[in-house]
Amino acid sequence: MRVDALLFDVFGTVVDWRTGIAREVATILGPSVDAPAFADAWRGLYQPAMEEVRVGSRPYAKLDVLHAETLLVVLDRFGIARPDAATPARLVNAWHRLDPWPDAAPGLRRLRRRFLVAALSNGNIGLMARLARHGGIGWDAILGADLAGDFKPKPRVYLAGCEALDLPPERCMMVAAHSSDLAAAAALGLRTAFVARPDEHGPGRGESAPAVTCDVVATDLLDLAQRMGT
Amino acid sequence: MRVDALLFDVFGTVVDWRTGIAREVATILGPSVDAPAFADAWRGLYQPAMEEVRVGSRPYAKLDVLHAETLLVVLDRFGIARPDAATPARLVNAWHRLDPWPDAAPGLRRLRRRFLVAALSNGNIGLMARLARHGGIGWDAILGADLAGDFKPKPRVYLAGCEALDLPPERCMMVAAHSSDLAAAAALGLRTAFVARPDEHGPGRGESAPAVTCDVVATDLLDLAQRMGT
Repeated sequence: MRVDALLFDVFGTVVDWRTGIAREVATILGPSVDAPAFADAWRGLYQPAMEEVRVGSRPYAKLDVLHAETLLVVLDRFGIARPDAATPARLVNAWHRLDPWPDAAPGLRRLRRRFLVAALSNGNIGLMARLARHGGIGWDAILGADLAGDFKPKPRVYLAGCEALDLPPERCMMVAAHSSDLAAAAALGLRTAFVARPDEHGPGRGESAPAVTCDVVATDLLDLAQRMGT
Repeated sequence: MRVDALLFDVFGTVVDWRTGIAREVATILGPSVDAPAFADAWRGLYQPAMEEVRVGSRPYAKLDVLHAETLLVVLDRFGIARPDAATPARLVNAWHRLDPWPDAAPGLRRLRRRFLVAALSNGNIGLMARLARHGGIGWDAILGADLAGDFKPKPRVYLAGCEALDLPPERCMMVAAHSSDLAAAAALGLRTAFVARPDEHGPGRGESAPAVTCDVVATDLLDLAQRMGT
């Protein structure tokens, strides 16, 4: 197995979206809102929003745009029908300020010594760039949805990422905390590394082990760095 | 003037392509070849190759691909009709190993403290990513030709870069050592910064002053950092 590039899922794998969104919701909307429940509800609309693009019932739109649309649904569901004018944009931009899991920045620094490291996320380039700055993460490239004009797990997103780095799929390794993402990548010939994020959706509510066969299984990104010999 | 992102031309502005290509040509093809002349001849076919894509007479192709095609012309012109099997790929990859001008890496580090810094080059993403690693440069994002599917100075390349960072053109500043690049950017509403590279095409054969009005004129990237208050 010769791997030259590691392609990273970001939400859940590199950054802790639930804690970050809940913290921002608490700050922006105040203590009367159940902030973790708000974060879960918002994230719950993530896949359905992208699915419209995947099946071709609407043109590609950046995740920031989808977040802005689904936010209105969640605000309404939580009885916040008329937020302040600046509130929706502040909440959408909360996705640009999520903290990495504690192992992520040091793990990525170690992995980057030997491998090309790139984001392969459904987040748009501007979101990914600001998130990386916020978290002290350096990517060699931001690939993913904007480059492909579609969302994972559509094959084009993975293949466009490999092609952008001028590498065949078997020289790229998808790194994710989600078995579905890794299954889609493996079907195209990419190598796969599972990273356990057992608390992604709240304590004990995340994947602690992969549901599919993976080339590497790691407890976090520092463990992955160790396993990859960096 | 409020600028949030600096978009960088790379060949000539950030890296010294002529010295780098000539050095690699001398190493790979040996002392019988006039290496600086070879570098100039190869670079001379750069604009004509891209022009075919710009005018639509061929589909978009990565710069690595164009470099491989134009290399065959130059090898033939220099009487090297039958190079070793590995030679063409080694020479094409020489464009991935160009050194930055001495001020470039430290200047970019300073600028990055305050601004989003992105490559907006006609080079493909894989080339740009490897060049940045080689030169110790960190980009927040690699934008440019691959993202737009076309080459500068086509408007789409600049506009796709601004859109990828979720910024209107007037909040982006194009940084280049070439007046033509800056004129194209300014026509679309971007801010412009000229960086003098008087030796780009050999001693005294580069632009030492802009031929168009620019928002900022700098002697190098450390001077630009100073002028931008970083």
